[in-house]
Formats: sequence, structure tokens, C-alpha cells
Amino acid sequence: MRDELIKMLESRQEEMIEIRRYLHENPELSFKEDKTAKYIEDFYKDKDVTVETNVGNGHGIIVTIQGAQPGKTLGLRADFDALPITEETDVPFKSKNDGVMHACGHDAHTAYLLVLADCLIQLKDNIKGTVKIVHQHAEEVPPGGAKSIMETGKLDDVDAIFGIHVLPLAPAGTVGYHSGYAFNGRTYFKLAIKGRGGHGSSPDKANDSIVAGSYFVTAVQTIVSRRLNPMKTGVVTIGSFDGKGTFNVIKDSIEIEGDIRYSDDEAQEVIAKEFQRIVRGIEELFGVTYELTYTPDYPPLYNDPELTDFVAETLNNIEDPDITKVEEFPKMAPSDDFAYYLKKIPGSYFYIGCTPEGVEEPYFNHHPKFDIDEKSILVAAKAVGHVTCTYLEE
Amino acid sequence: MRDELIKMLESRQEEMIEIRRYLHENPELSFKEDKTAKYIEDFYKDKDVTVETNVGNGHGIIVTIQGAQPGKTLGLRADFDALPITEETDVPFKSKNDGVMHACGHDAHTAYLLVLADCLIQLKDNIKGTVKIVHQHAEEVPPGGAKSIMETGKLDDVDAIFGIHVLPLAPAGTVGYHSGYAFNGRTYFKLAIKGRGGHGSSPDKANDSIVAGSYFVTAVQTIVSRRLNPMKTGVVTIGSFDGKGTFNVIKDSIEIEGDIRYSDDEAQEVIAKEFQRIVRGIEELFGVTYELTYTPDYPPLYNDPELTDFVAETLNNIEDPDITKVEEFPKMAPSDDFAYYLKKIPGSYFYIGCTPEGVEEPYFNHHPKFDIDEKSILVAAKAVGHVTCTYLEE
Amino acid sequence: MRDELIKMLESRQEEMIEIRRYLHENPELSFKEDKTAKYIEDFYKDKDVTVETNVGNGHGIIVTIQGAQPGKTLGLRADFDALPITEETDVPFKSKNDGVMHACGHDAHTAYLLVLADCLIQLKDNIKGTVKIVHQHAEEVPPGGAKSIMETGKLDDVDAIFGIHVLPLAPAGTVGYHSGYAFNGRTYFKLAIKGRGGHGSSPDKANDSIVAGSYFVTAVQTIVSRRLNPMKTGVVTIGSFDGKGTFNVIKDSIEIEGDIRYSDDEAQEVIAKEFQRIVRGIEELFGVTYELTYTPDYPPLYNDPELTDFVAETLNNIEDPDITKVEEFPKMAPSDDFAYYLKKIPGSYFYIGCTPEGVEEPYFNHHPKFDIDEKSILVAAKAVGHVTCTYLEE
Amino acid sequence: MRDELIKMLESRQEEMIEIRRYLHENPELSFKEDKTAKYIEDFYKDKDVTVETNVGNGHGIIVTIQGAQPGKTLGLRADFDALPITEETDVPFKSKNDGVMHACGHDAHTAYLLVLADCLIQLKDNIKGTVKIVHQHAEEVPPGGAKSIMETGKLDDVDAIFGIHVLPLAPAGTVGYHSGYAFNGRTYFKLAIKGRGGHGSSPDKANDSIVAGSYFVTAVQTIVSRRLNPMKTGVVTIGSFDGKGTFNVIKDSIEIEGDIRYSDDEAQEVIAKEFQRIVRGIEELFGVTYELTYTPDYPPLYNDPELTDFVAETLNNIEDPDITKVEEFPKMAPSDDFAYYLKKIPGSYFYIGCTPEGVEEPYFNHHPKFDIDEKSILVAAKAVGHVTCTYLEE
Repeated sequence: MRDELIKMLESRQEEMIEIRRYLHENPELSFKEDKTAKYIEDFYKDKDVTVETNVGNGHGIIVTIQGAQPGKTLGLRADFDALPITEETDVPFKSKNDGVMHACGHDAHTAYLLVLADCLIQLKDNIKGTVKIVHQHAEEVPPGGAKSIMETGKLDDVDAIFGIHVLPLAPAGTVGYHSGYAFNGRTYFKLAIKGRGGHGSSPDKANDSIVAGSYFVTAVQTIVSRRLNPMKTGVVTIGSFDGKGTFNVIKDSIEIEGDIRYSDDEAQEVIAKEFQRIVRGIEELFGVTYELTYTPDYPPLYNDPELTDFVAETLNNIEDPDITKVEEFPKMAPSDDFAYYLKKIPGSYFYIGCTPEGVEEPYFNHHPKFDIDEKSILVAAKAVGHVTCTYLEE
Repeated sequence: MRDELIKMLESRQEEMIEIRRYLHENPELSFKEDKTAKYIEDFYKDKDVTVETNVGNGHGIIVTIQGAQPGKTLGLRADFDALPITEETDVPFKSKNDGVMHACGHDAHTAYLLVLADCLIQLKDNIKGTVKIVHQHAEEVPPGGAKSIMETGKLDDVDAIFGIHVLPLAPAGTVGYHSGYAFNGRTYFKLAIKGRGGHGSSPDKANDSIVAGSYFVTAVQTIVSRRLNPMKTGVVTIGSFDGKGTFNVIKDSIEIEGDIRYSDDEAQEVIAKEFQRIVRGIEELFGVTYELTYTPDYPPLYNDPELTDFVAETLNNIEDPDITKVEEFPKMAPSDDFAYYLKKIPGSYFYIGCTPEGVEEPYFNHHPKFDIDEKSILVAAKAVGHVTCTYLEE
Repeated sequence: MRDELIKMLESRQEEMIEIRRYLHENPELSFKEDKTAKYIEDFYKDKDVTVETNVGNGHGIIVTIQGAQPGKTLGLRADFDALPITEETDVPFKSKNDGVMHACGHDAHTAYLLVLADCLIQLKDNIKGTVKIVHQHAEEVPPGGAKSIMETGKLDDVDAIFGIHVLPLAPAGTVGYHSGYAFNGRTYFKLAIKGRGGHGSSPDKANDSIVAGSYFVTAVQTIVSRRLNPMKTGVVTIGSFDGKGTFNVIKDSIEIEGDIRYSDDEAQEVIAKEFQRIVRGIEELFGVTYELTYTPDYPPLYNDPELTDFVAETLNNIEDPDITKVEEFPKMAPSDDFAYYLKKIPGSYFYIGCTPEGVEEPYFNHHPKFDIDEKSILVAAKAVGHVTCTYLEE
Repeated sequence: MRDELIKMLESRQEEMIEIRRYLHENPELSFKEDKTAKYIEDFYKDKDVTVETNVGNGHGIIVTIQGAQPGKTLGLRADFDALPITEETDVPFKSKNDGVMHACGHDAHTAYLLVLADCLIQLKDNIKGTVKIVHQHAEEVPPGGAKSIMETGKLDDVDAIFGIHVLPLAPAGTVGYHSGYAFNGRTYFKLAIKGRGGHGSSPDKANDSIVAGSYFVTAVQTIVSRRLNPMKTGVVTIGSFDGKGTFNVIKDSIEIEGDIRYSDDEAQEVIAKEFQRIVRGIEELFGVTYELTYTPDYPPLYNDPELTDFVAETLNNIEDPDITKVEEFPKMAPSDDFAYYLKKIPGSYFYIGCTPEGVEEPYFNHHPKFDIDEKSILVAAKAVGHVTCTYLEE
């Protein structure tokens, strides 16, 4: 079956690229991917396969490909939402939706997986087991789509799940992997500190919330510098300190918002505990009161070491001229809600090199000039194809 | 002459109150006192006196009363601008100019001085020397009117200058004084701190201006706590910390605005020097850049000790049933541009108690419910009248 | 009686100077003034007067001079302890007691008061009322002598109390006064912050007490800069931060000691409350524990305004060629336990100018080169003599 | 040759244990290992091998085993100094040198390497290439012995170098490895901050070095929290803040000492640059001066990925009943001067599990109760023996 599948994929490379370009030209924001979801649904029309739409809290789509023979159940996921970024590339298929752009490569993810799914549908009779294709909405904006899809229970029978992300860390042909914790988790927080307003000349009659907030910012630095295991990754960023007021009036309250990142569950716990302690400490220190919203979003993404080894070995062992290198990639600072699948289902999220040919310093994902080498789409299809074949065969 | 003057003032108490109520009903903001200035100008129409209008950077008016005999030149000043406050009193002559209110008592200042001036004009033949009546605009908003009036040179020949302020620190009948530094000086500042923006998960690629700004706020506390002579008064208030941004984006720059107060010239100098050093220190500490606007407004107000003693003794020695008490008042936290006159001309700015009868906890100046005991207007007229007589007689 | 007293004082100027020089040559530390106390006791031997020794917690001496006629009871106090300072002057009567010096002028205080007391004893028959001479030990070292003397109840019947301090703020001949709060109060504190030790490379396994202590130091700055009325005086000095340890070991605990000053009772209260709140805040902020010793020593010294006016007027009205000037002195930063008498008994602590003739920049009290113009001793005797006469006569 | 070597090692297990126990009973501090060095030297006496003593800045010993056939040159290193720790174990061979203890396992390192070396000497005729045995002094105390040994040039011809460390992270039988950066580098610093002393009540006359030092401590937290790539490891520990003084005297200067750790050369550079900028920033911020000693000690230890893979594969491929598991170990927080060899010579430093049998929570290296499973000594000898054979054979 593998040879047939690979041949089919090779023959449909043009089609993958066309799909990708169509999606690129018609990007839609998270939770608003109406046309994209319709496009995907239409793709499966008249195919011999079960399609569930509106899965989870948005436009999630699950396509279940039942093989002729009994076997394991494998999940394959691609996300399809775009970003609120105004595209600055010169490609002929530039975004027609002003201010929205497929700047993270989800167009490529969806393109390869549609074609791969179609091939698998055609090869169904040869398949041992089941493949569940997950077209996921809303990866970019917490709470994301993954968590709600998992909560439907529709993936409860999945034995392993794989997904890929295109990354311009290597040229097309390279596949990257990272065992264990691979993407950071993140938490959003909002902290209002309330003192008491007053005239600038009489600080003793007031209680200065800007001063309390500033000491908070300095104290919070110690979480990463002193409380976290130095071998772990943690970031506490205060992105907003809203204390705009009048120069000669003591401000009664301020609002701070920020973003917290951590490499694993233990770091998440330590930071949460220390952060909340510091907030209480500031309350006592300055006699202010506070309101705190502390919302963990995506958890740290944990690639199952065995299945990650399995991916690396599988791709190392096959001899495919399009997959030229398989190597370890570093841990990633961003977060991805693929982490939610991996909380319950063992699996691995791996990387498809996509640096455009001849480019030395490629624009990274989320940049208005982000672009990919479209050859990477076939690489993605083949890599996932190989992994699927080996996994189901074993 | 004194007896005659005092009798005249007593007989015109009603008129003073009417003028005050008219002004109260028709308040105008600083630098926009068109009708008020016209009203004052009209008051002097057909009187035998020199009136100069539009003096300085606004509606300043100087009325020169030339006595029949040679002698000293005395300045008397009353301010006439109002505040951007919506009146909340129930007086029948409540402000008709929505959002504008004579909440600082300048209506009373002007009322007494107009009538006193008129009486002095009538008594001109008995006067040894000259009296310059200064109706000053725009006391409430820096750069104020006083500085520009002084810069015209029209007061260069003044030997001494007096002014009063109504204060609800005592009932009508009490006159307060404070020798030496009596009102604080103040400085406005605006500080932009520029770092480099970036993604919340990669602080090392950015340079966090909120962090730099927060450490600045904590460092600035040491000016008052450690650098200033503890016997002196100093306040450094940061009224605005504008660092509003997006929770997961490191903010590239912030803007801080504030208000600095100091009791005397030395404190002003120390604070200015230390503040600017700390700004440079933050630049080095965090590798940020800055733009600083540091604008001293009104200087500390210095009452000449000899002339302040002179006022206290004069009022202590006369026996006037309306002036029941003469006492030292504490130093005042606010600022007043009367300080500019006193930088060049010896003089004294003193206080007229105005707490409404029966009120235990009066609303202070600048409060939307601020009100005065109107008897204090006659007290003001008499106190300044006595001081004028004694000063010119000596 | 006044004339006689003044003449007697004038005739005994030499003796006062001799006494002062004897005391200067034989200084003794606070609570260890054995010989000095014996010297004073011997001075009164065979005089017709009641002498109580070992009053209070040390060598305090109270001499009660009962006038022949009934009247008020007046207290006069002079302190007699010296300082742990190695004298650096070249006077012939330089300290023979190495490392101990009368660098604060208590030798002069005691010298004038002994002679004045002797004169009053001789004039007893003319005195209306009673004079209690208080020779006080241990002013320099808290808890001082004054508090314990007051606690004996031996001064409960005193109607007014006066004392003087020599100060090189003016030449001999000048008497200074300051109404209301005149010397600062002070508090001693010791704060131990306990975290958890550990290896320098693993801060997360430890809890860094140096970091907690440093944030404490920065937070404590806000007491003076933001919590205290800017018109008041407050100082919080951390004189000791004992965190000596090994470079690569995280320190488990540190100890901070310091000195707090305040101008009046309200400031004392605000600082105490805020300081203790900040300590609790640091505990919460860093999860450390603490032990705090917070010991108010001498209270702010409050000169009764009426009796201070009385002193000023009395000395202004007499015409004494040795008292050439009576003027207001500024508030003093240091503390004096005369404050304890004034907590219960109305009175005034005033100043005797003592700048050595011809010296422009005199060494101040507590300097190893501190010296006085010995003419100031007679001025002290006369000033207190005049005040005594007028007070008892009225 | 391999089989013979392994058999020889197995037969001499008792001897290795005896050597280890002898060394354990006779520990010597870094740079003072006279008897230990003599013991090692004596061990090689009468053996057919070149021994160089006093190599580098101490008791370093290099033993060169010249194989009969030409080939590569391999370095093997074991350290032999002990720690200033008072042993708290109950072993019968407890330290006889009070206050000194082999608490880091260097006794085991030396024991296995002596016996392995002796076996290799005996097998010399079968060896292709050269083995240089490095018995290194003074690993525990910077500047250490390794750097100076490298500077002699005596290892310039070495093609690869290996060393091991016993670690109670796994039972005897487990060998650990970590590719790339594996131990942190470290820097020592001492910072004196000089202000100006003064009386506690007059901070404006002084310049408070404790305040400057405390703000320094808070500012320095931002290096790790904001300036360092969060994926990297960095620690800045201030182990000593020597600001002991008198409670009421403002301290003129303080001294801070500390320890900096970093995972790689880039982190080292970033921290050094930021640290020094912050020091300059504090100088400007508070108008103090400083003296800074900033001394990088051991660099980050970088295990050559190829040679680390080589070690792992070699040990995975052999079938040795004593080597039961080969696995990746995490990065280590401490530092080791083996890093100096690896700066110039490719190689790998790997780990020998040594948790005593039946112990769930073993005491870690440097603990006074640290102990090893002595079976790990044979494991070390065999692991290094296998690596040596494979390396020289290839």
C-alpha cells in the first residue's frame, strides 16, 4: 500500500499547491472560518467516507476513514484558521481578505492533509484499522478548537495522533522532531490594582496604584530569576501597564495584562503559585486591593518519546528522495493547542522544513512576509503518509 | 485716612458681596476670562485712575492710583480666573457656565479688591505714594499670568506687594500669615522610555520598556526618601504611566507624566538634579533611550519675613471688631503664581479665614462644594486696607 | 530678686567656666557617670537644700529648692553624660578619659545650672514657689534617664519645666527658641528575614533572603516618599544590612538594623504602621518569615507654644547686655530625651548660641573638634535665671 | 583485546574497591593532594610506562601508554581531590582527615582509572595508538587543574578525550550521556559599591550604599528574567551582601559577592554584558562609584555530539551483563573543569549511575552523607574500557 500511496501523492503535488494557494488567497480568522470549512466539506462530498462538521466549539471537521481490516485507530490533524495580519508578500495568490493572512502555514497543513486523506480513502480496502482526519479550526486564539474537539469524545478511541507544522528552520526536504516537551504552555493574566486617588501634592491622603503596580513589576521578575528551576523555561511578560492618568492626580487604579510561558507542567505550577503569592504580597505591602484573572490557555505540548522515536526512525529508514534529512529541532517558544490532544492521546507533533529556496534569512511564522517553499507540502504529505503506513502496518 | 477708608469699606460690604456673586455666577477659565476682564475694566470706567488692560500673556489689568503726596509704591494683587469644575453647591448664584466654577475664591479676591481700589481712588488726595492694583488673570494654569506681568516691567517700581487668599482653615475674622516659604513650588515632567518591542515569549529579542519604567518608578522614590533634606518638603508624583498594550507583546515604549513639589529653591534644585540623574541611570541600566520634558512651573512662594511680621503686627495692633484673630497658618502644599512677584519684590501673601458659619468640616478650595462665609470679603478688604495705610504712612 | 540673682551670676562666671572645664576633662559615658554624679552631689554638700541621688535608672539627681513663699513649682534640667568620641581639640582641659568626650556641651549645661542653683538656694527667702533642679544622667543612650526620672513621680508636682542646649548656630549672646515640635523622635528597629539556604546554582530549591531583604529596602523608601504627609519630617535609615555569606551559597537569613526619625506623634504613628505592613508584605511576597524588633526611643520633643512664647517675650523684654538677640531657630533633626518631660509637663527647651568667636564654620555637636565659646555659659545661666524669675513672679 | 581487557577488569574488582576505600579514608583538599598524588605515582612505579608528575598548576599526573601499533591518541581523565566537608556516613572507611571528605566520588573515579590503566599497560602490545591517562588534581576549586594541564601542551596530540562522573541518578549498571552542553559554566563576581557615610538622620548629607546595593539586587533579577533567551539556563546568585554597620549611621560602602551560571557560551556573553551594564547603571542612578571583579571560572561543558553518540552506541551495542542500561541524562546545574579539555579536544563526559542498592532517595554529591554503590566502579572501568577499545579499533 505504501508504494501506491506515495505514487498517488507525487502525482497530486500540483493539486496540493493549488489548494494551498486557494486557501492562502481566502484566509479567515479563528472561529470565523465559514468558507474554509465549507470548502473542506465540499472536498469530501461524494467521497465514501464519514464527515462530521461543526465539531467542538466551531468549524471543526472529523473525517473517519474506516479501513477494510481491523487495526489501530490513528488521528491526523491539520489546522485551518488564519491570522489578523496584513500580508506584505508579493505572491500572485496574496490574501484577498484585507488584514487577514495565512501567515502561519495552516494553508499548507490543510492542503496536504486533504489530498492525503483522499488518497487514503481510495486505498481504504488495503488499510488495517481506522484513520481519523481532524481538520481543526481556531488554533490561533485561545481557548482554541482542540480542547473542545477532545471534549466531544469523538477521538476517545484514537490510539495515536500525529500532526505537523511547517517551519522555515530548514529547507524543504528536512523533517524535524523533538521528543518530550516541545512547545511551551501559556497563561493569560489580568491584574487590576486598586489604591485610592488623590491630589499629586498629597500622597499621604491617597494610595498610589502606579507605585504599587511598579513594585509588582519588579517583584515579578524574581519568579523566573529565583523561583523556577533554571533548567526549565519560564517567561512572565507584562505586555500592558495601563496607568494613563493626569500628571498631577494620583491614580486610583491601574490594570496590568500579561502572558506567561512555561516548558512543562511543573513549571506551570510553580509560576502560578509564585505569581499569586506576589499579588497577595503587593496587596499587603501597599494596602491596596486587587482583582486577578489568571487563565491558563494551551498547556505545554508533550511529544510522546516512543512515538517521536518511531517517527524519526520511520523516516530515517525509508528511502524517499523528497525526504532528505531527519533531525532533532530545538524546543519551540510558542504554544499550540495540539498540546490538548497529547494530554490524552500519545502522539507526536513534528516539523516540516519550508525555507524558500535561496533564502538565507527567511521570515518566520506570523511575519507579514512569511512564505514557504511549496515543495514542503509534498514532503509533509509523504512524511505523514509514511508514518501512517508504518504505524498501521505494525 | 485709615478711619475714613475703613468706614467706606464697611458701608460698601453689600456691594462687595454683590460683585462676588456676579463673578461667581459667571466664572471663566484661565486665559479665557474675556467677560470678567471686561467687567473689571468697566468697573474703573470714568474713575480718575490709569487702567492698563491686556497686560502680560492674557487679560491682566493694572490700575495705578497715584497719591497726592510722594511716597512708596505698593502693589496689591487679586486673581480672577476660575476652574474646570462642575459646581455642586446650592447657592442661588451658582455658576451659569457649566463645568466652570469659582471654586478657589478668586471671585471674593476680586470683589474686595475692586471696592478697596475704588475707595483708595476716592482717598487719593490723602495718599502718600502710589498703589498699583493688579487684577491678575490665569493663576490656575501654568505658566500663569503673574510671570508675564512681571516681565512687562510695569511693576519694577513697586516697593512691596501684598495679596490674600481665602482659606476655610478658620472662620471669617481670622487672618493667617506664614513667614518664609509658604506655598510649594512645582514642576511638570513627561518622560518617554523607549525600548524595543517584541513577542511576549522572547524577551531577549526585545527590550521591555514597561520593566524599565517600573524600575524607574521604584528608583524615583529615593529622591524624597534619601536625597532631600528631611526638614524640607518634596513630592514626586507619577500621575500617569501610559503603558497600555497587548498582553502578549512586549511594549516598545511607555510614557510617564508627573508632578513635582518642593518647599524651597534648594529642594527644587536637589530634586531636579537627582531626577535627571535617575533618568540617565535607567537608560544605562536597561539600555533604553529616553526623552524628558522637565518644566518647572510656579516657584516656591517666599514671604518676606520682615513684611510678614509687619502684616501680623499691623493687624494685631489695630483694634478692628471684624478682625478677631491674627495667627500663624501652616505651610501650604499647593502652588500659587504670586510666587513670581515675590521672587523680585518683597512682600507677603496672607490668608483670610472663610469657613462658613456653623460648618465644622468645610469643603476645601477646588472642591465642587467649596463655599465661603461672605463676611470674609469685608475682612479681606479691611485687612489689606489697614496694611496699605500703615505701609504707606511709615 | 532678679537684679540680685543676675549680679550673683555675673560675679561667678569664672567659677562656671572652671566647673565646665573640670567636667570636660573628666567625661563619663551614659549610665556610667559615677564621678560626675559624685562631683554634683559634693557641690550641694552643706547647702540648705534637699538632694535626692540615684533617681531613676541611673545617677539622676534632683535638688529641691523650697522658696519661702508659696507659689508654682518650676523644673530646670541639665544633662551630664558624655559621648564615646575621641577628642580632637587642642584645649588645655582636653578629655583625660580616652575615647570619651563632652562633645555635646553637657559640661556647659551642668556648669551653669550648678551655679544658678546655688544662687537660687541663697536667694530662697525671696522665692515664691519651688524650683526643682534636675541633674540628668544618660541623655545620649536610649532609653535615657529622663523617662525613668519621670516615672519616679518626683516631678509630678512640677508646673513647668525648662532646659537649654548649647548650639553653635549663633554666637554667644543669642538665645534661640522653636515653638511646637522642635526635635525629632526616633525608633530603633532590627529585622531578621529568614528564607532557606541552598546552592547558588539552584535558587528554586532555596529561598533567597538577600533578594527578599533587598526588595524590602526598596519598598521601605515609599514610607517617606508616599505615605508620610510631605509637610512632616520622616527618615527611615537602614544602617546595617548583614547578609555576609559565601559567594556560591544562597543565604538563608539576613539581619537589617536601622533608625527611624519623625517630627511629631502623627508621623511616628504613620511610619510605625506602614513599616510593619511592609514587613508583612515582604513575608507574603517571598514566602519568608521574619522577626521584628521595633523600639520607639525618644519621642518627638514638643515645646509648649505658650511657654515658648513666654521665654521669647521674657528675654526680649529684659535688657541684659549679655543677651544680645532672641530669635527663632529651625527644627532640629536629632532627638533629646527632654521630650519625655514635655510629654507630661508643659515647658520649653531652648537654645544658647555658642559658636566660638571668630569661627565661621564651627564644628557641630558630636564632632571630635566640637568646642564652645565659654561666654555662652553665663548667657545660659542668665537666660534661665530671667525665665525663672519671671515665671515664679507671675 | 576487548575480551581480555574486560576479563582482567572483572578479576580486579576487589582491588578497585580497596583503592577507592583507601582514597576515601585519606581525602585531601584541592591543590593539597600531596599524599594522593604520591599514592598514584607509586601505583605506576616499576610499570612499563611514562609518568609525568606535577603537571600544570599542582599535582597533575599524565601517564602515557604507547601502544605497539600506530593509531589515534585517546585521553582518559579522572580527578582526585576531595571537599572541605565533614563526613557524616557510617562506612568503616570513613574519612580520617577531619573536615575533608571524598563527597563527590573522585575516589571512585581514580580507583577505576588506575586499574584500567594498569590493564591497558599490560595489553599495550595489542593497542593501536596511544592512551594518555590524566589523573587530575583540583577539580573542585577554580581555577582548577584542567586549564593548566591543557596549557602545558601535553595533550595537544590527543584526538578525543573521555571522562566519567558517578551520579546517584540511577543504580549501578546504568550509564548516562548528554549530547551538547551538559554542565553549566560559572563566573565569580565581587562588587564594592561606594557611597558616602553619614548620620542616620541626615540622608541628604550622605549617599546610602545599602540603598544602592539593594536596588542593584532587584535590577539584576532582570538579566535572567528578561535578557536571557528563555530556552537557555542562567542563574545570577548574590551569595553575600556585606553591609553590616551601625543602625544609626548611613553606610558608606557595601560589598556584594556572587556566583553566575550559564548553559552555554552565548548565555555567558549575554549575562556578562548585561551584568556590567547594570553595574554602570547603578553608578549613574545613585551617584555612587564601584569596583567590580568579574571572573569567569569553568566554561560550559560541551559534549561533542558525534562522540557522545559514539559512546551511547558503543555501550548499547556491546552485551555486557554489568552495563544494564544506557540512557540520556538531563543537563547538570553544576560546573566541572573537564569543560576545559572539551574546549580544545572533542570528547564526551558521561555518567555512571551509583545509587546504593535499596536506597530510594540517595544523598547527592557534595552531601556529608553521600555514598555510592561500589559496583559502579567496575561499571565505570568497563564502560570506559569498551569505549577505549572501540575508539582505538575504528
